[in-house]
Amino acid sequence: MKEASVDTVDDGFKEREMPMEREYQRVSISGEEKCGVPFTDLVDAAKCVVKALFIREKYIKRSMQSFCKTTAHSLQDLGMKPVDVGVYDDIPETPVDADAPVHPPVSDTHPYDNQDPKNMPADTGYGCKMVDGVVHVYTKKVNMDKSSELDLLYPDLKEYIADMNVMMALIINGPVKSFCYRRLQYLSSKYQMHILLNEMKELAAQKKVPHRDFYNIRKVDTHIHASSCMNQKHLLRFIKRAMKKYPEEIVHIERGRGQTLKEVFESMNLTAFDLSVDTLDMHADRNTFHRFDKFNAKYNPIGESILREIFIKTDNHIEGKYFAHIVKEVMADLEESKYQNSELRLSIYGRSRDEWDKLAQWAVKHRVYSDNVRWLVQVPRLFDVYHTKKQLANFQEMLENIFMPLFEVSIDPRSHPELHLFLQHVVGFDSVDDESKPEHHIFNLDSPLPANWTEEDNPPYSYYLYYTYANMTVLNHLRRRRGFHTFVLRPHCGEAGPIHHLVSGFMLSENISHGLLLRKAPVLQYLYYLAQIGIAMSPLSNNSLFLSYHRNPLMEYLSRGLMVSLSTDDPLQFHFTKEPLMEEYSIAAQVWKLSSCDMCELARNSVLMSGFSHKAKSYWLGPSYSREGPESNDIRRTNVPDIRVAYRSETLTEELHLIIHAVRTEELDAIDEEDSLTMGPLPGQR
Amino acid sequence: MKEASVDTVDDGFKEREMPMEREYQRVSISGEEKCGVPFTDLVDAAKCVVKALFIREKYIKRSMQSFCKTTAHSLQDLGMKPVDVGVYDDIPETPVDADAPVHPPVSDTHPYDNQDPKNMPADTGYGCKMVDGVVHVYTKKVNMDKSSELDLLYPDLKEYIADMNVMMALIINGPVKSFCYRRLQYLSSKYQMHILLNEMKELAAQKKVPHRDFYNIRKVDTHIHASSCMNQKHLLRFIKRAMKKYPEEIVHIERGRGQTLKEVFESMNLTAFDLSVDTLDMHADRNTFHRFDKFNAKYNPIGESILREIFIKTDNHIEGKYFAHIVKEVMADLEESKYQNSELRLSIYGRSRDEWDKLAQWAVKHRVYSDNVRWLVQVPRLFDVYHTKKQLANFQEMLENIFMPLFEVSIDPRSHPELHLFLQHVVGFDSVDDESKPEHHIFNLDSPLPANWTEEDNPPYSYYLYYTYANMTVLNHLRRRRGFHTFVLRPHCGEAGPIHHLVSGFMLSENISHGLLLRKAPVLQYLYYLAQIGIAMSPLSNNSLFLSYHRNPLMEYLSRGLMVSLSTDDPLQFHFTKEPLMEEYSIAAQVWKLSSCDMCELARNSVLMSGFSHKAKSYWLGPSYSREGPESNDIRRTNVPDIRVAYRSETLTEELHLIIHAVRTEELDAIDEEDSLTMGPLPGQR
Repeated sequence: MKEASVDTVDDGFKEREMPMEREYQRVSISGEEKCGVPFTDLVDAAKCVVKALFIREKYIKRSMQSFCKTTAHSLQDLGMKPVDVGVYDDIPETPVDADAPVHPPVSDTHPYDNQDPKNMPADTGYGCKMVDGVVHVYTKKVNMDKSSELDLLYPDLKEYIADMNVMMALIINGPVKSFCYRRLQYLSSKYQMHILLNEMKELAAQKKVPHRDFYNIRKVDTHIHASSCMNQKHLLRFIKRAMKKYPEEIVHIERGRGQTLKEVFESMNLTAFDLSVDTLDMHADRNTFHRFDKFNAKYNPIGESILREIFIKTDNHIEGKYFAHIVKEVMADLEESKYQNSELRLSIYGRSRDEWDKLAQWAVKHRVYSDNVRWLVQVPRLFDVYHTKKQLANFQEMLENIFMPLFEVSIDPRSHPELHLFLQHVVGFDSVDDESKPEHHIFNLDSPLPANWTEEDNPPYSYYLYYTYANMTVLNHLRRRRGFHTFVLRPHCGEAGPIHHLVSGFMLSENISHGLLLRKAPVLQYLYYLAQIGIAMSPLSNNSLFLSYHRNPLMEYLSRGLMVSLSTDDPLQFHFTKEPLMEEYSIAAQVWKLSSCDMCELARNSVLMSGFSHKAKSYWLGPSYSREGPESNDIRRTNVPDIRVAYRSETLTEELHLIIHAVRTEELDAIDEEDSLTMGPLPGQR
Repeated sequence: MKEASVDTVDDGFKEREMPMEREYQRVSISGEEKCGVPFTDLVDAAKCVVKALFIREKYIKRSMQSFCKTTAHSLQDLGMKPVDVGVYDDIPETPVDADAPVHPPVSDTHPYDNQDPKNMPADTGYGCKMVDGVVHVYTKKVNMDKSSELDLLYPDLKEYIADMNVMMALIINGPVKSFCYRRLQYLSSKYQMHILLNEMKELAAQKKVPHRDFYNIRKVDTHIHASSCMNQKHLLRFIKRAMKKYPEEIVHIERGRGQTLKEVFESMNLTAFDLSVDTLDMHADRNTFHRFDKFNAKYNPIGESILREIFIKTDNHIEGKYFAHIVKEVMADLEESKYQNSELRLSIYGRSRDEWDKLAQWAVKHRVYSDNVRWLVQVPRLFDVYHTKKQLANFQEMLENIFMPLFEVSIDPRSHPELHLFLQHVVGFDSVDDESKPEHHIFNLDSPLPANWTEEDNPPYSYYLYYTYANMTVLNHLRRRRGFHTFVLRPHCGEAGPIHHLVSGFMLSENISHGLLLRKAPVLQYLYYLAQIGIAMSPLSNNSLFLSYHRNPLMEYLSRGLMVSLSTDDPLQFHFTKEPLMEEYSIAAQVWKLSSCDMCELARNSVLMSGFSHKAKSYWLGPSYSREGPESNDIRRTNVPDIRVAYRSETLTEELHLIIHAVRTEELDAIDEEDSLTMGPLPGQR
């Protein structure tokens, strides 16, 4: 049918007094020992859990990423540290009206228009250099030393290694494992009961909401790679059009000689007519299962890396012109759909210092921007490859290539004007590659520092993640000082490979993609739940690579209350229809028999964990979205019943209370004991 | 992305010499006793199977439906009956050129334009009346009796009951069951080996084909109901538009007083803005599983039957205007997609004699027609309801309401001019309702004749199907005489309820919808395979009603070589995206990891079993599509590798040969024995 036809009514958001539907059937447990394990076991486990949560809170807040408020408040009850109420408060914004429309106002100027360096923030004159793999900033550009060091937060490697070891010990502790496993089971059954008792109420609440349904609530594709964000049919059509439109364009230099697009295809003797989705051969199939290498090869159209270079790279002979066009077509589709948004991954490899400028120039020159899209920058963990190719002498060079430009532009935006503009739409960093590759090194204090990392082996996942985190943290403090926005860490994590990747993810990143392996790590799964760490899951991607659909843990995570969202990862390789994100939702809904409420909750989660602005979220989810509990929900915008939100927050609060309470009472007992010791025996005793 | 943009290249179908890729790894069994069961068991089983196949052949050919050629030829080898080479040969047509385009020529006149009765075939002056539930035709309209009876084929009830009893006995025969079960297992393993050995070859063959891929091959949605052919979002938009466009239109008579569309919605106090997919509440959910009653209620928008009457009925106060519009929008989408086609079900209830005329007038008046759509007429099995409502005195009245108009229009097209035009696009009959309803009656010779069927109980499935078949058979013979096209029987069958529905389906219908229960009936499954009876399967529909997706037998059937296709059944209730059929394929592909070859085979099956014209099929599949074996395939149109087609036909031929051969040799042995008996003992013996 004709899309986007009638939906204009939606643009005017009608004020309605929605009765707060909060009454529902609650499941409560009575009796002394509530959690089904002996009190002492509870206390031991609780202590460990609390310790882990404190560790995460420390690293997340230091890096200015956001930490779950409810969890923070519970920890605060232990009175060990002052709570910092999160990331937005220090950026004053005009509050959004409760009955504001669901569509944020659109600015009439293109964000890339203002390219004149004169209008950019001035140079602070700071200098910066990398010390032991982490950039340090100095008040001046000459003789930079401790004395002139700017007091930003520079993470401490020793402390990190120590905390990491605590975490590693904790997740394999037997009693803690059984405890967490029991709690997760409990959360599953409790949800089951909630649904049986409240399903109808939730449905009724949704029906009461005027106009709103799953189709017109905001959804964010929280994990999708720009180079595969178009589906196979779209790329095919685009290539055919390009062959018609620019046959004579020089697209590539072959042995010093320029090759036109026509010549490129002639050399493969293919015509536009010949091409088909089959010849393109970019769709994952049975043979990619557990073969990440084969999967990576699928990025080459017709198996020809040259076509990948011409059509889906930003840095090529035509300066990524074709790629820019097709990404803009995808953006146009998102804008037409109104409610769908994407967080596209673009790559920085760290092979040379000018990658950032080239990438920014690509975006600015081709005006690749959409209100429906934000960027994440993914860094492939390929040091070993570049090292053997002699492109990098040591790991620190890679880190310098990745981070120095970001410091330079934050110190003096005019030094990289396009990058300054581009960065305003970059949410943060992703870390990508096949996690199942064997790792031959364990990150500890004996590990060589980045400058000394010259061996063949690739640094382990944790090493990559720590140094990304460390530099990002310093950068964020610098940028916050200047009133620039800060970045977050959102790595691929726990898709495959060793469990401990999920420990790094837990300590250092705001949220993660995949998290499949949490299903085998009860302690971590429980911690990800208590900290409400976002997990962008892509069951269709997993189905082609690592885990058959029906075994995917998404539904289990969701029922237990983990903060999961649905994402597509690579529509080019995995999806068949014109609406990959809808396809992802639809299949999940069919296979797991999701209710409309479940689907809307997933969509709301996707917005919450996304990197879209506080303002956008206020319009999309409601002005109070960042509060705790059902107050944070506006069913008129999210179509999620307050009942569901209330159930989630109440359950989380109870769970945290159980833990905190156990630790507290144990402390008090300790104090009482001391007292009783100081007292002598009472008269009459003995 | 922009649909239908570049695909024009396709309109010119380039001639290519495709090398016939027929060489592949074949699995062959050597050794004397090939089938793994003792010869005597084989013979007994084979005899039964052959008997069953002969029964089907008899009923299918008598009714002028099409019977699998390969099977017919094998039966012919037993020399028991002359084989009639099927249904097309007697309609001479101009052959389609081997390199004709894939798109049939489009006629420039609208099929409903020629409404002038004068241009219609003349009245033959025949008379007709119903005798014992079957219409008989007579050479004149007065004193119609045996003497003046036209010699058409009038099915014999006694013979049918006898054959049915043979079938019933046969499918529960232990040894036959084990035999068929073994053969089905064998077919599964053989397919498994075929894939392991030839997957790459098949893929390579597909890549070699210029331009063709899964997206631009013909697909037919072989089972979809007109009243739910639009998805929920589409219907919602349509209703909102209608409320805007025709607020003052009288749409319904309430207690003698006309009600405008505005008033109807005011009476529910709903505005266009309020409406959402949730309020519409037509989507199947967890609560419809095993609740066909609840599911039927989902046909009422907002649970209001009046909205169903206004928007998705052909016979209402506005003469089905809105329903016509929305169906035409769906048709427009199909035409835009170019390669997708649908066989939409429209209802005839049999409550009154004018239903056919009203339906035809609806279609002709609103010009509801598309080259991408053919009609099937579904008859709900609701005699008991109409009977208790006193709308029908006996079952024969229902049969008369359903069939008399068809005989009248076939005898004298000018008596029902619109119906004559409409029927040209009607493929045949479907029989619908909840098969899981208990049946209190067994169809046998003691069953009351339709005229005497006056009891409360509904006649059983087999009774409905037989009388539909019987009347259709007579009708087809009459129509063939007049050079009109004939109808086929394609009932819902084996979705739920008793197994024996599948026996009626096997004996009487060209193909069926659902067939889920074949998974519990090895003999019937094997027979459906040997007779290559089309099965239109809708796993998403089943998933919401009768069987969870991952347990659906579609993949098992396909691997064994049953003639299955994918269909949507009710996009309004089951699907989420704008492309329900693509969604159906996509989910199947994801869940069962279908290869592009599997998907293209399913699509080809859907065209083969569909009711589209011989001509259309010749363009879509290739001029020789109705031949046997790989010659029937044109990979340039179907994108199905000849290897796959060859594997299927070779496997079927071998399977049939095993059966036929067993029966043959046994006959020969019998003859030898007779000889030896006639001879006296040889000299020297005793």
